[in-house]
Amino acid sequence: MTVSDKSLANAIRALSMDAVQAANSGHPGMPMGMADVATVLFGDFLKFDPTQPKWADRDRFVLSAGHGSMLIYSLLHLTGYARPTMEDIASFRQLHSPCAGHPENFELAGVEATTGPLGSGLATAVGMAIAERHLNAQFGDDLVDHRTWVIAGDGCLMEGVNHEAIGLAGHLNLGRLIVLWDDNKITIDGAVDLSSSEDVLARYAATGWHVVSCDGHDVADVRRALAEAVADSRPSIVACATKIGYGAPNKAGTSGVHGSALGTDEVAAAREFLDWTAEPFVIPADIADAWKAIGAKGRDVRAAWEGRLASDEKTAEFTRRMAGDLPADFSLEAYIDTLIANPQKVATRKASELALGAINDLLPETLGGSADLTGSNNTKTKSTGPLTKDDYSGRYVYYGIREFGMACAMNGMALHGGVIPYGGTFLVFSDYMRGGIRLAALQQQRVIHVLTHDSIGLGEDGPTHQPIEHVMSMRMIPNLDVYRPADIVETAECWELALKDATGPSVLALTRQNLPQLRTEKSENLSARGGYRLRSAGAERKVVLIATGSEVEIAVDTAKMLEEQGIGADVVSMPSWAHFEAQPKSYKDDLLPHHVLRVSIEAGTTFGWERHTGIAGLRFGIDSFGASAPAEALYDHFGLTAAKIAPQIVAALNNN
Amino acid sequence: MTVSDKSLANAIRALSMDAVQAANSGHPGMPMGMADVATVLFGDFLKFDPTQPKWADRDRFVLSAGHGSMLIYSLLHLTGYARPTMEDIASFRQLHSPCAGHPENFELAGVEATTGPLGSGLATAVGMAIAERHLNAQFGDDLVDHRTWVIAGDGCLMEGVNHEAIGLAGHLNLGRLIVLWDDNKITIDGAVDLSSSEDVLARYAATGWHVVSCDGHDVADVRRALAEAVADSRPSIVACATKIGYGAPNKAGTSGVHGSALGTDEVAAAREFLDWTAEPFVIPADIADAWKAIGAKGRDVRAAWEGRLASDEKTAEFTRRMAGDLPADFSLEAYIDTLIANPQKVATRKASELALGAINDLLPETLGGSADLTGSNNTKTKSTGPLTKDDYSGRYVYYGIREFGMACAMNGMALHGGVIPYGGTFLVFSDYMRGGIRLAALQQQRVIHVLTHDSIGLGEDGPTHQPIEHVMSMRMIPNLDVYRPADIVETAECWELALKDATGPSVLALTRQNLPQLRTEKSENLSARGGYRLRSAGAERKVVLIATGSEVEIAVDTAKMLEEQGIGADVVSMPSWAHFEAQPKSYKDDLLPHHVLRVSIEAGTTFGWERHTGIAGLRFGIDSFGASAPAEALYDHFGLTAAKIAPQIVAALNNN
Repeated sequence: MTVSDKSLANAIRALSMDAVQAANSGHPGMPMGMADVATVLFGDFLKFDPTQPKWADRDRFVLSAGHGSMLIYSLLHLTGYARPTMEDIASFRQLHSPCAGHPENFELAGVEATTGPLGSGLATAVGMAIAERHLNAQFGDDLVDHRTWVIAGDGCLMEGVNHEAIGLAGHLNLGRLIVLWDDNKITIDGAVDLSSSEDVLARYAATGWHVVSCDGHDVADVRRALAEAVADSRPSIVACATKIGYGAPNKAGTSGVHGSALGTDEVAAAREFLDWTAEPFVIPADIADAWKAIGAKGRDVRAAWEGRLASDEKTAEFTRRMAGDLPADFSLEAYIDTLIANPQKVATRKASELALGAINDLLPETLGGSADLTGSNNTKTKSTGPLTKDDYSGRYVYYGIREFGMACAMNGMALHGGVIPYGGTFLVFSDYMRGGIRLAALQQQRVIHVLTHDSIGLGEDGPTHQPIEHVMSMRMIPNLDVYRPADIVETAECWELALKDATGPSVLALTRQNLPQLRTEKSENLSARGGYRLRSAGAERKVVLIATGSEVEIAVDTAKMLEEQGIGADVVSMPSWAHFEAQPKSYKDDLLPHHVLRVSIEAGTTFGWERHTGIAGLRFGIDSFGASAPAEALYDHFGLTAAKIAPQIVAALNNN
Repeated sequence: MTVSDKSLANAIRALSMDAVQAANSGHPGMPMGMADVATVLFGDFLKFDPTQPKWADRDRFVLSAGHGSMLIYSLLHLTGYARPTMEDIASFRQLHSPCAGHPENFELAGVEATTGPLGSGLATAVGMAIAERHLNAQFGDDLVDHRTWVIAGDGCLMEGVNHEAIGLAGHLNLGRLIVLWDDNKITIDGAVDLSSSEDVLARYAATGWHVVSCDGHDVADVRRALAEAVADSRPSIVACATKIGYGAPNKAGTSGVHGSALGTDEVAAAREFLDWTAEPFVIPADIADAWKAIGAKGRDVRAAWEGRLASDEKTAEFTRRMAGDLPADFSLEAYIDTLIANPQKVATRKASELALGAINDLLPETLGGSADLTGSNNTKTKSTGPLTKDDYSGRYVYYGIREFGMACAMNGMALHGGVIPYGGTFLVFSDYMRGGIRLAALQQQRVIHVLTHDSIGLGEDGPTHQPIEHVMSMRMIPNLDVYRPADIVETAECWELALKDATGPSVLALTRQNLPQLRTEKSENLSARGGYRLRSAGAERKVVLIATGSEVEIAVDTAKMLEEQGIGADVVSMPSWAHFEAQPKSYKDDLLPHHVLRVSIEAGTTFGWERHTGIAGLRFGIDSFGASAPAEALYDHFGLTAAKIAPQIVAALNNN
């Protein structure tokens, strides 16, 4: 081949500027600036095979600076992935194009993560790198032996989540993680030194990273730096000095080229500058062939790997785990039977620990952790030893006080495949990692958040620690399942549902305080219905009490008080709104008929409960911040006791 | 005085362990470990006067490790603040005690910030230190010349928000900010090295901080280190090597002493170890007197300051600003008159910029900024030059790509007083700083978030950037005002409301896309009603269309289509749910009568709209993630056009 590296890189530049120009929307600066670095990465370092984009032992490449999406679309197209086609690229940022504004894992094989929210891509890559080492420890070098590569910009590196992520990566010494920093000295607002004076490499070094620099437009120098990074046993950051928008002669090096089309004049000038004579969306044959040859490099390696897989005694298990399938016989039925046989009063966080005891024995793929609240979240079981830099086979990550970093790392683990991550913190700190939870939902990844201390029931820690709006506000995140189980049986049922849903994340909202076991008869998984009748009215039904979690006990007590006055009251436990809403209308109407008084009880905001009570119903909850006191005092203070609720229901019935 | 520093510190230890023991809940480890450091800080460095806790030029002290709340309660009591009394301390963590589980600024003068969510206290302190330098630049050394002190633990230092905050502080060279790090090598899960291998001081140094270490139990060494920190022109971190729970002979130095009462045996052992013979909640007279003498030290300094204030020509303005009062004649009426006179079609983000142009000229106390989206958020106006380390008088902060850090810094500015902070990012990234927004609401601080690109209307950037649940999910945060104005006039009205509410934060959700001016007649501030009738039905009213922001235009178009078919339709614009709900029932019933079909249109989740439409109403919105395409194509794709909505309303009317 006589095609130069510069010509290869210029193909990326041309596609990027032309696609952005056609859309009149997008970010040409980053792809043009990082085209040389990306050419070296894909040409000489990245292990991949476009014909088998899901090959388990491929290197993972995460474009953390997701706004530069044309970089990855160009690379995937040029190296021979089935998609995007040139037509896809020409319809960049148009409805139904897989070439969306930011890269989306659910649109294109080869896009390993959905990125755009800055910093989260890098933090996600940390999770991929953890999963790789963990599976390597479990399955050996023959099957699992790959790297995770990241391209990140200054925006990524300034975000808090990135700092959490690199702290974790340094601590776990993830030597197969390599970050290529697009060190172009430009942010949207202007020069980086408008807002930062940081010695970035010193900061990485302080967290245990190997650091190296190169000229991002000198391919030999890039090659040297990447080779150094590969050779070092620590995670590496490679500072690639680049000019943003390289190739656009009048605009390169300015923030003006970051997020807008270059304009026809500047595109023409860039063509001249780059000596690029082809029409838009046309790649000269010699350059196209050279890129295809790069894409073909990995085929033999992949074929050899498949040979090893075929002859490995762990083939079936490895394949199952990478496919995300649970063992065919997985069930918590036997475990739940033991609960039915011996009713217990425990906090649902403890119930979760007990369920996890069974789960972690049955599922070797679970990989747990907590953001420094292990003893409070009850996330560690006896079969999960710590995952450390000296022993990656452990199944428990001490994430440290890094909630957002944990959430993104778990996303990366799920995206990598082979593991089912779960992690804990206090429910109120879901606020810290909400961006990560949302990305799990968008990316359709099975990530399970164990969020304990789920209401004023946590008591004395007070309003900074007491969720009010959190459960409700997560119910409205698309594709996120929020579970709030009422007792030890529902907790096991919700765990089972969360594990069996491979298409999205779940939140388990769990109590600090003890709750009686309300379910004492063997049954199907009733939580799968989302809501179900826990108790039927004795007298003529006048009221349906709908409650979740710790308030189901209160609803039962309230029903008893009402029945004593001859008022029939059903109790509906509703651990999952999403599952309930997916039920047939007849089921829902039977459970929550419109002609009786519907009453919700939940120790959180009443906002939104109109959906199930109707406007005419009653809604008991807390629409202010919490307070610091023992739990029992708080429930009384906020009026969430049967003694305070029942009379208001009676009064409402009398007024109708 | 012959009372030793150790005895002074032991008074803190005794109160802390006894209060936690009495509550059987709380965190004795930190107060006991940091008692010596705190004694030096309050005894020799902190500028304060317990008789005038709101003295404007006092040093600010933030207990970022808020779980150690007994430390600050002890200090406030011992130095002579009116509250907490010894009775308050004895009722630590009980209902209605000002000594809540975590320190709350709204409970006790002397508690400068509500802390507990880790890292956010330190990030808040950065904002206080910015406000101090800014006011110093505006009012001079005579009136503003104080320091901000922070006690932080490993948890604070690991959190992403802390990393963002120290990057900002280093960049702005906030030399009057001093962080005392409780370097006790312990987190909740165990030793710090379970989850972190970071060289903390090297990381601070990399961001431009001065670093110094000391033995946290050697008061002379602490004194030396604090003096060094004071002398250095950079922000300082002082690593104080301590033993967590110092004084508890059997449990000190372990995570077991972090978050639980010591138990009666260990309390007794600690009494012996510390040679502390007094009963619980009794301080020996000589020690109490010595502490009171420390508390009295600042009185002369404060009196001298008051003398300077009285003779300063800026007295009235300084006093007004520190009181948080707007100028008596502040009004946007004249500005709004100009809008009425010359209707314009502009994006509400642009409308916000225009409003800010007027506001920033009228209010010298506004202090703006953006998390690196200045040109997109439209937050900078001509009267706000940059605030830099070389010129703190500027009124615009380039926060960098640090949303959570920005939110917390703004909280700190508001808590400090004298400024009204506002800052911008994309609405979708409210997820990144939700913890900070919530703390503004809890702390009752006037912080204004300018959140642009508020729906699919942002277009091609796609689902990672398109808010769906964000507006609704913030409406349910207690004490947070969420505004979504429909045009340039409403935008100005909402800005006025946000500025005039000194008791809590506001969010302005603003569009990227242009919107026609719907309000063309002079009126009172209609947004103050939360919702109001923008258009009255021509034909007999059959429908009320309720919309917010960019969808009000669609509602108006829909109403016109319905009227063409003889169906009378009101249009209600509802920029603020909270203000609407505060209106009299008669007003609300008149606007949204139950006997007509109520229809909501909002380009976000429909979750929650049942409150205003009733169950029988129609709700148009988006209950999935967005997509990447031009805005117009997306509105059509998601069915949010008059042409798609009107027929569904007609069908619903025909079915009834």
